[in-house]
Amino acid sequence: MRILILGGDGYLGWPTAMRFSARGHEVFIVDNFSRRRWHHEHSTDSLTPIASLAERIEAWREVTGRDIHAMIGNIDDGEFLDQVVADTLPEAVIHYGEQPSAPYSMMSRRHAVATQQTNVIGTLNLLFSLRDRVPECHLVKLGTMGEYGTPNIDIEEGFIEIHHKGRSDTLPYPKLPGSIYHLSKVHDSHNLHFACRIWGMRATDLNQGVVYGIETEETVLDDRLCTRFDYDEVFGTALNRFCVQSVIGHPLTVYGKGGQTRGFLNIRDTLQCVELAVSNPAQRGEFRVFNQFTEQFTVAELAELTQRAAGELGHQVEIENFPNPRVEMEEHYYNAVNTKLRELGLKPHYLGEELVKSMLTTIERHRGRVVARAIAPRTRWKPGELDAPGAMLDPAAAARG
Amino acid sequence: MRILILGGDGYLGWPTAMRFSARGHEVFIVDNFSRRRWHHEHSTDSLTPIASLAERIEAWREVTGRDIHAMIGNIDDGEFLDQVVADTLPEAVIHYGEQPSAPYSMMSRRHAVATQQTNVIGTLNLLFSLRDRVPECHLVKLGTMGEYGTPNIDIEEGFIEIHHKGRSDTLPYPKLPGSIYHLSKVHDSHNLHFACRIWGMRATDLNQGVVYGIETEETVLDDRLCTRFDYDEVFGTALNRFCVQSVIGHPLTVYGKGGQTRGFLNIRDTLQCVELAVSNPAQRGEFRVFNQFTEQFTVAELAELTQRAAGELGHQVEIENFPNPRVEMEEHYYNAVNTKLRELGLKPHYLGEELVKSMLTTIERHRGRVVARAIAPRTRWKPGELDAPGAMLDPAAAARG
Repeated sequence: MRILILGGDGYLGWPTAMRFSARGHEVFIVDNFSRRRWHHEHSTDSLTPIASLAERIEAWREVTGRDIHAMIGNIDDGEFLDQVVADTLPEAVIHYGEQPSAPYSMMSRRHAVATQQTNVIGTLNLLFSLRDRVPECHLVKLGTMGEYGTPNIDIEEGFIEIHHKGRSDTLPYPKLPGSIYHLSKVHDSHNLHFACRIWGMRATDLNQGVVYGIETEETVLDDRLCTRFDYDEVFGTALNRFCVQSVIGHPLTVYGKGGQTRGFLNIRDTLQCVELAVSNPAQRGEFRVFNQFTEQFTVAELAELTQRAAGELGHQVEIENFPNPRVEMEEHYYNAVNTKLRELGLKPHYLGEELVKSMLTTIERHRGRVVARAIAPRTRWKPGELDAPGAMLDPAAAARG
Repeated sequence: MRILILGGDGYLGWPTAMRFSARGHEVFIVDNFSRRRWHHEHSTDSLTPIASLAERIEAWREVTGRDIHAMIGNIDDGEFLDQVVADTLPEAVIHYGEQPSAPYSMMSRRHAVATQQTNVIGTLNLLFSLRDRVPECHLVKLGTMGEYGTPNIDIEEGFIEIHHKGRSDTLPYPKLPGSIYHLSKVHDSHNLHFACRIWGMRATDLNQGVVYGIETEETVLDDRLCTRFDYDEVFGTALNRFCVQSVIGHPLTVYGKGGQTRGFLNIRDTLQCVELAVSNPAQRGEFRVFNQFTEQFTVAELAELTQRAAGELGHQVEIENFPNPRVEMEEHYYNAVNTKLRELGLKPHYLGEELVKSMLTTIERHRGRVVARAIAPRTRWKPGELDAPGAMLDPAAAARG
C-alpha cells in the first residue's frame, strides 16, 4: 500500500514510518522539522540524541534494505501539499503533521494563531487534495481525547445518541476542549466530518490519550533509529516528564491536586492502533472516531507509580503539587469508552512498574543531556498569574524552581 | 458607550453603525471592503447603488450631526486589529467582520482556506486583543443558525441538557454545519466558549437566521445612507434573491424540492436583536447563545409568498425547482427554540405579502442595475457535478439559464 505520513519525523511519526515500511508498504514522509526548530529556538532538545531525518532513512536502509521517501515542506502551503499528494497518490494518509502542544498554543497570540493556522488550514488543504486527487484514500487523522474535556457524563467514541423532548438523534459528541491546541483538533474533527458527509470521503479520527514510552520494535534495531523523547514543560507529556524528573532528582511536577483523570497508552499501542485503523479502513462517506487509549489514570496515580518504580532503582523522588498553570478541573467524573479499537483486535501493553523501570533505565543513559531549566511549568493558561512558584518567566529563575 | 463594529461597511454592519450612532453611542467601524472587492472581481454589484464608506459617513454627519469613525484593514492582521482595540478601547464589539457566504466558501480550496482563515484567525486575534486590552468588553458575535444543520431533535440555544447512562450534563449543542463557511462559524463558537470559560471573557453568539429586507429607520433618511442588497447566487439569500428574480422575470430558483426549512428575520429585527444583546450584556465568564430569527419557513413557502405578492403587483412569476447545487436534506424535521431574545423584549416584524410588496417596489427602482448572469446557481457542493441545468461554469451559458 502507498502510505503518506504527515509529521513523519516526529515522536510517533518516525516509528510509524518504520513500522509500515517493515510491513512492506511504500512509505512517504512529509515533515517541516517544526519541532526540531522550536527546540533550537528555546535551547532545549530531545532527551534521546536523534539522528537527522536523512541519517535515519539511511540507517533504516542499511538495517532493513527498505526505502522511506521524504519530502520537506509545510502542509499549510496548499500548493506544496497538493503536489505531494499528486506525486505519491497515497492509498492511506496518516496525519500527525500538527502542532501538538497545549502549552505552546497558550503562550501568546502568535503561538495560538500559528497553532490553529498550521493545524486547521493544513488539514483543510489536505482534505481538498485528497478529494480531488485520491477520493478513495483513507485518512487516518490524529485527534486527542482532550477534545472532549471532562463532561459529567460518559465519553462516547465521537457520537452520542441524544433523547430530547420525545425525539432522538445520533449526533457529534459535544466538545469542551481545554486549550487553543485542543480547540484546533475539535475544528479539524468538524472539517473531517463535513468532508465525509458531503464529499463521501473516508476518515478515521483517532482521539488519542497521553502517550508514554521510548521504544518500539523498530527503534531498538539501531541507535540511529531511536525516536525523540520530550520532557520539557511545553512538549513533554505527563509520565515521560515524571520519569526524567525522577532520574535527575527533580520533584515530580504534579499540577494542582493531581486528581485530573486522563486516558493513557504505550507508544507501542499507538503503532498497533494506527495499523488496525489502516488495515480496516472506513467506508466511503464514513467519519469514524476511535478513542485511542488503553487505561485511565489520575496524574497523582502516575506520580506515585513513578515514585515507587524509581525507588526500586535507588532514586529518592519527591512529589510536589505545583500551582496548576492550566485552567482545568482537578477532581471530576471521567469515564471514556474505548471499545472500537479493542474490537478490531488491539492487545494493550498495560502500564506497570516494570515498564516505568525500563523507561528510567533508558533515560539514565541520556541523563547528561537533560536541560533542567526547561522542566518547571511556566506557560500559564491565564495571563498575569505570575506570582506562583514555578511560574517565573525568567529562565534562570525557573531553573531553580 | 464606545462600540466597535467589525464589518461596518456591510449589509448589516452599516445599518447597525447608524443605529448605535443615532442612539448617541460613539461608533467605530472596521472594514476591509472585501465584499466590494469580490463584486468587482466578478463583475457583479449590490442592487442598491451604495455610496463609498467616506460618502456614507459624510452623509450621516450632514443628516444627523453625528460622527462615525472608520479604520480600514483586515482582522486576520493581528497587529492591525490589536492597534484598533488599543486605540478605541471598546465597551462592546459587534463582530460582523467575516466572509459570510456558503457558496463562496465552496468554490475552491483557495476560497475555503480564505474563509476559514479570515473568520477563524480573525476572531482568534480579536479574542486575544480583548483579553489583554479590554477584559470587561462584551463581544457580540454574529453566528448562524446554519451551525446546527438539521438534526432530528429540537434545536436549543447553544447548549443542551443531555441525560446519558444515568448521569446528566448541560453541554454545547452538537453541530452539523453544511458548508466550509458554516464550519468556520462553528469553530468560532468553540473558540469563544473557551475564551469565556478560561479567561472569564463575556460573549454573546447570535446564531442568526436568513435576513431579508432592504430598509431600516436610518437607511431611508437619505439615498446616500442606503445599505447594500445582494441577489447573486453567491452573496444573495433566499427571499432577497426571489424578490429580484420576480422583478426581472427570472423563474424563482428553488433548490431541489424546496422543503428545506430555515429560520428567517427582517433586517429591522437584526438591529433590534443586536441592540438588545448590547444593552443586556453577558456576565464575565458567560458564553451566551441566542437563536436570532423570528419565523420558520420552507424555501417553497417563501417562493409561493413571493409569487403571490409579485402577482398582485402585476408580475407573472414562475417557480423552478433547480437541481440542488448543495448537499442538504430537502425534507426534514426542523424546530428551533428562539425564546431568549423575545424574553429580552424583541418585537418581531413578521413576514407577509405587504412586506414583500414593499421590497419589490424598492427593487423596481433599481431593476436596471440587475446583472442577470449572476443569478443561476453555479457553485456546487460536490465537484464534478456540472451536467445539471444551471450548473454551467461558463458565465455566458449560465446567463441563459
